[in-house]
Amino acid sequence: MQNFVFHNPTKILFGKNSVPSIGAETVLFGKRVLLVYGTGSIKKHGLYDQVVQSLLAADATITEHGGVQSNPLLSHVHEGITLAKENNCEVVCAVGGGSVIDEAKAICAGTPVQHDVWKFFTGKKSIKKTLPLTTVLTLAAAGSEMNSGMVITNDATSQKFGFGNKQLFPKTSILDPSVTCSVPADYTAYGAIDAVSHVLECYFTTTDPYTPVQDRLMEGLVINAMESCNRVLAKPDDYHARADLMWTTTLALNGLTSSGLGKVGFPMHMIEHSLSAFYNVPHGAGLSAVIPGWMRFNARLQPERFAQFAERVFNIHTGNVEEKAKQGIDALTGWFSEVKSPTSITALDIPGTDIPRIAANAMTLAKVWRMREYTEEKIEAILNDCV
Amino acid sequence: MQNFVFHNPTKILFGKNSVPSIGAETVLFGKRVLLVYGTGSIKKHGLYDQVVQSLLAADATITEHGGVQSNPLLSHVHEGITLAKENNCEVVCAVGGGSVIDEAKAICAGTPVQHDVWKFFTGKKSIKKTLPLTTVLTLAAAGSEMNSGMVITNDATSQKFGFGNKQLFPKTSILDPSVTCSVPADYTAYGAIDAVSHVLECYFTTTDPYTPVQDRLMEGLVINAMESCNRVLAKPDDYHARADLMWTTTLALNGLTSSGLGKVGFPMHMIEHSLSAFYNVPHGAGLSAVIPGWMRFNARLQPERFAQFAERVFNIHTGNVEEKAKQGIDALTGWFSEVKSPTSITALDIPGTDIPRIAANAMTLAKVWRMREYTEEKIEAILNDCV
Repeated sequence: MQNFVFHNPTKILFGKNSVPSIGAETVLFGKRVLLVYGTGSIKKHGLYDQVVQSLLAADATITEHGGVQSNPLLSHVHEGITLAKENNCEVVCAVGGGSVIDEAKAICAGTPVQHDVWKFFTGKKSIKKTLPLTTVLTLAAAGSEMNSGMVITNDATSQKFGFGNKQLFPKTSILDPSVTCSVPADYTAYGAIDAVSHVLECYFTTTDPYTPVQDRLMEGLVINAMESCNRVLAKPDDYHARADLMWTTTLALNGLTSSGLGKVGFPMHMIEHSLSAFYNVPHGAGLSAVIPGWMRFNARLQPERFAQFAERVFNIHTGNVEEKAKQGIDALTGWFSEVKSPTSITALDIPGTDIPRIAANAMTLAKVWRMREYTEEKIEAILNDCV
Repeated sequence: MQNFVFHNPTKILFGKNSVPSIGAETVLFGKRVLLVYGTGSIKKHGLYDQVVQSLLAADATITEHGGVQSNPLLSHVHEGITLAKENNCEVVCAVGGGSVIDEAKAICAGTPVQHDVWKFFTGKKSIKKTLPLTTVLTLAAAGSEMNSGMVITNDATSQKFGFGNKQLFPKTSILDPSVTCSVPADYTAYGAIDAVSHVLECYFTTTDPYTPVQDRLMEGLVINAMESCNRVLAKPDDYHARADLMWTTTLALNGLTSSGLGKVGFPMHMIEHSLSAFYNVPHGAGLSAVIPGWMRFNARLQPERFAQFAERVFNIHTGNVEEKAKQGIDALTGWFSEVKSPTSITALDIPGTDIPRIAANAMTLAKVWRMREYTEEKIEAILNDCV
């Protein structure tokens, strides 16, 4: 086990009827609130009214910044920062999924400084101070509600970059599973796939050979992400299944699984970010198109690890190590198909001839994330396994 | 899944050479430090010198309060509170295992008030404010380094009571597994058993029938507590096995497993506390003497739950539900025997004729903990299964 620091100070309020606490939780940090949300679904289902009423009842003054897209754009982040500055906002409240929360984090980081917030993403500046953030989560997927990371797409340069800083942990996040009951089947599955990917990237990129307790936690989370997703798809308004999936996706990327693993990478995300940046595919769909190929490529390098995954997650006990590894990858790929998510870039209508430009784009992120084991050639080879 | 609040703000510094950070981490909260430790083992192994040097290098003024016993005594807590008051201590630094950390927490709670700190344990007063606490952990067992609970024995009344408050989370805890390499085999096993008990009590006392992700995490932690303990016993100075056991015992009682389970009880601890109070048996040894009997008694009431435990933790797949449940209990009892911990109160030389007075004592704690499903008769019946 490698040395680590674990310090996750986010307060989680989980459960039915927890949304009306958002006002009181938010004004703890200031009364001038920037309210960040997406493109309207929260207004359809009454959530917007609930949040605004709660904020107003807590004497907040609200500046609104709606219209955040999935794969949130830097240009829109800039607009939010301008609004927050003009209105002297003291705290940001995000109501949405990972995209909304990530954009809110970027606004929290960019508001106290005079330079372009993008400089944090490219490593040219480091965060000293941010606005505090509270969130109401509407999608079980990204884990941003309980971690210190964010991902933003620079629409001027077609770069989708991620970045983390301990100041970006939300102060309080409200997770009411019933809010997610209206999420359609495809995005429910994409969310579960995102969580599975977060776990697998830690599981397969750790270079520490001795992480038994983390392995058990990660295997349990992958099993449960799949099982809870299946139950939700069978019965979309099953509160308990929604709750189980929601908490699983939060735990999948809150620092718990990666503590002690040393440096881990997010190569599946690194490649998928290029698919999102070029083709604006849903993040989870892009991941399930990349994961099987990435796993096939890497199972050759560490078959024992992939065999352990197959044994413990899919109860595969026949064949030699390589055969078990392959069966485990096939079983996971089979589950992607069951939940109707693409299992190749071909299924996303991305032509194989685009692979070089995708690899070149992904390589720019590999450099920023210091994933030195990746070259353009290697990424191309992996993408060739994803066709 | 039940509604819950999860908020664990403790910062963990885990790994080799982390102890010298204790000075800087502690003086963040004040320079006048009460240093709390046990009965001398930290002086044998150089740890005491390391901590004192680090504190002095950070310009701390140290008031010492050593001599904490396992099953720490209220009378000794009182002495610590007097010292902290007399020296205007601003922060408490605990160096030891769960007993030392628990006594330090009681001192943190009792120093800012004029009344007897015991009133917090009996529910007659509630905590408003505490001194901040930092810790250096020397024993993988109790989990107190990352939770808000504490257990103290009132030597005047022979009551061993536990109590929790969110203000009692340590600010920072330092976990260097190499510090635990000198822990002897018996106390290593007792520590692992304590962690197993913490998990099982949540697992078997939840009244929520739908806790899939928590189940997976709890099952993984039990498997890993046993496996890592076995590896440590086979090779006591195996750093990685020590690290694995240490982080497992911390995760076993940091709020992660119980979030969403609703009200859980700690009936094994409730009964064991009476054994410790009367006979001063090591906590883990008392637990392993009680757990098999408690499980046999309760498996009759919820055989499916015990069968799931047997299947997932011990790979038991033969027989009907009741038979699986029994095999699971036998397997766990067998592991207690393997690690040389007693599996009955008889093995602790406690005569069966003492059962009524043990049950009467345990009942006083059942009342304080509001475990309404317990009566003296029921506790006696369970203890009769522990002979």
